[in-house]
Order: sequence, then structure tokens, then C-alpha cells
Amino acid sequence: MHLYPVENRTVVIIDILRATSCMTTGIAHGIGSITPFADLEACRAMQAQGYIIGAERGGEKVAGFTLGNSPFEFMDPALKGKDIAVTTTNGTQAIQASQGAAEIVIGAFLNLTAVANHLRHTPHDILLVCAGWKGKVNLEDTLYAGALLHHLQDAITPACDAPLMARHLYEQAQHDLFGFLQTSSHVQRLRRLNIEKDIAYCLETDRYDVLPMIQNGKIIAC
Amino acid sequence: MHLYPVENRTVVIIDILRATSCMTTGIAHGIGSITPFADLEACRAMQAQGYIIGAERGGEKVAGFTLGNSPFEFMDPALKGKDIAVTTTNGTQAIQASQGAAEIVIGAFLNLTAVANHLRHTPHDILLVCAGWKGKVNLEDTLYAGALLHHLQDAITPACDAPLMARHLYEQAQHDLFGFLQTSSHVQRLRRLNIEKDIAYCLETDRYDVLPMIQNGKIIAC
Repeated sequence: MHLYPVENRTVVIIDILRATSCMTTGIAHGIGSITPFADLEACRAMQAQGYIIGAERGGEKVAGFTLGNSPFEFMDPALKGKDIAVTTTNGTQAIQASQGAAEIVIGAFLNLTAVANHLRHTPHDILLVCAGWKGKVNLEDTLYAGALLHHLQDAITPACDAPLMARHLYEQAQHDLFGFLQTSSHVQRLRRLNIEKDIAYCLETDRYDVLPMIQNGKIIAC
Repeated sequence: MHLYPVENRTVVIIDILRATSCMTTGIAHGIGSITPFADLEACRAMQAQGYIIGAERGGEKVAGFTLGNSPFEFMDPALKGKDIAVTTTNGTQAIQASQGAAEIVIGAFLNLTAVANHLRHTPHDILLVCAGWKGKVNLEDTLYAGALLHHLQDAITPACDAPLMARHLYEQAQHDLFGFLQTSSHVQRLRRLNIEKDIAYCLETDRYDVLPMIQNGKIIAC
């Protein structure tokens, strides 16, 4: 991240398995706002202010929190209109690192076209922030970055080789994302947690036409 | 690099355009030793000790140095048996960052099979260090890492997604590396320097059966 300034840029936060897929799902299902926290205790403290709290570390729900990091939890009608506070292993850290950007958009396959359409019209340079796994790149976030590049190839020019490589990978994988991901480290990690259903869901394209963005520290529908 | 310890590992330094291709060429053509320096002035000072000195920054030869960073310069019969000191934008920095490894191997397409054979038999875990461009990943170094993974897929297991992605990219590109690279940022940068011939040469596979490794700070034939 230190090589890529965020100032004056439209930043897209990408944590496909599963933070940004959960956020997109929640906003699409009518959650009022989702406030991301990098720190577990800061997130927990929000409960006293009436927030519903969620936390994931290492792929699992943290004890004492209402929500974990499965997108199906974020469909609960009881959450409609509510304010949620969440913290995850990688996704909310990526949001933290993007503070100061002109815009911060939440990206997922679930709202791919909505994000791509927004990027097509933004006046800013674009920075795609793949949350990865504990600082390392991962396949699923790279594939999503590549999907955006693929859909915007007539409109944007990559500034370095990373987006170019992401696009090549996506174009190789696009007809069977689920199959292509089977060898990835994170999918193997999650398979041990028995969440194949989550993974298949997070790879669905354009299930929602919603654009979650961060305004005043909260993710809301834009 | 800070996420990947080098201790007890066999490290492969990869800077295809053009540092490790030059080093491999030089060792194959009988240069006695090549000592890499990250710092320009430390490299220049070696001239007083009888070394022939080479330096590249931003793709171009630095004034006052005998050698630049074109592999064809490293074929000069006058260099046979000589000690060379070199510094380049990215490659020698990657070597510096790998100090403390169990072994440091110089990798290029020019000696791909020699490197792969060595890795097949090393008792250590393997770290492929792609020099990239000023800290960012680039396509050509990633493709070479992918080529090693492709050739060793029966023998080694990727520990994270980066080598997996590199292998996918290589398998997509392998039948036309030169064509695949035409869109990369560094090739476009080098094209402005008019060195298409260098690029085509650096993508030749197995021109040499030589294994340059660092011993006591010097790259020598092993």
C-alpha cells in the first residue's frame, strides 16, 4: 500500500472471501449502515451505542459478537435499517489503510457491474485495493480486480503490471471461477471451515445492483 | 520481502529485464565473478581494486561505468576470468534483501532448466524473489517464477497464492512470451530505450546450462 497513494483516488476495497461480499449483501438487504473497524475492541465497544456487532478472525466468528463473516447472516430481515459495526482479518484493515481517498467503494462479484459502472464515470484515478490474506496477495481478490479491468478495458489504462496480470488471470478463469479457485490457499483454508456454500455465493456475479460506499466512516448505499 | 523470511531457504533472484539475464550470460561466457552492489558509489569504488564496473539506473548505463545492463556487453571475450562489480535498479537490491539465505541462485530464462534442476534437489524451502520495478511487481519476473513452478509442479507445493498465480500466467503465456509481454509496463519503458533485441534475447529459454550462485558475496559458476 505504501507504494500507492490514495489521495484524490477512487479506491475499491476488495475482500471477496468474505468481508466485502458480506458488506454488499447487507447493504443490498437493507442494513442501514456498516461501520468497519480494524480493531476488535473498538468494534466491540460499539454495542453500548446500540450497534449490532460482528467480528471475524482467521475465518471464524469471534466469541461474544452477534455476527460472523458469512454473507447469509447479513440477509437477516431483523438487520433491516440497523447500524452494524464489523471487524475482519483483512477487509477492514484494507479500509483503514485507504483513509484519505477521494471515494471508497466496496467491491464484490455480487455487485460487479454496479462498481464497474461507477468506475467508468469517476473523474479520479482508480486504485483497486486487494485485501489479500495477512498482507499477502490472494487469488480471489486478484480475480475480482481482473474482472473490473476486463469490463473496463475500453475505458481505463493500467498504470503498472499488477492490474494487467489480474486481467489475464480473470480472462483465464472467468468461465469457471469456482473451479479455478479450488487450488487457492484461502479456499483450502475456508474449506476446512466447511463453508463451500459461502464461497459459491461470493462468486455469483451481479446478484445485486447496489453501490456501497463509505461516507463519514460508514458504509451506506449510494 | 518482510513477509517472507530468507533464513534456511534457497532463494532465486529474478530480474529478467535485465540484471539476472546479464549475470547468467556473463558467467556462461567465462567471467570470473560478478559482485552485486545495491549502492552506486560502493560499486564505483571497486574500480580501484581492479574490478571492471557496471551500473544501470532507470534502464540506462550510468556515466563513468564501463558496463551497462545489456546482456550482449557481458559476452565480451575481454571479460573472461575477470572480476566485475555491478549495480542495477532492481536486481542487485533484491540480492541485498536476500542476505542470510541458505543459498542464493541467479535465475533467468537463459538457464531455466539448470535452475529448476537445482531446486528439484535442494533440501531447503524455496523463495522466488521477483525483483520487479521499484518495489512493484512486474510481468516478466512473474512469468519466470511461473515457469519454474510449471517445470517443478510434480516436485514442489506452493505455500501461498502468488506462485500459483505466476504459474497460471506462465501457462497462458508460454507459447509466445515475447507477444504476451508487449503490454507490460517495463517492456514499454525499455522499448523507449530501443532494446527490443535485448528483450528477445532475455526471453530465450535454456541457452546456457550454467548455475550462477552467490558465494562469499560474489556470483560465480556452481
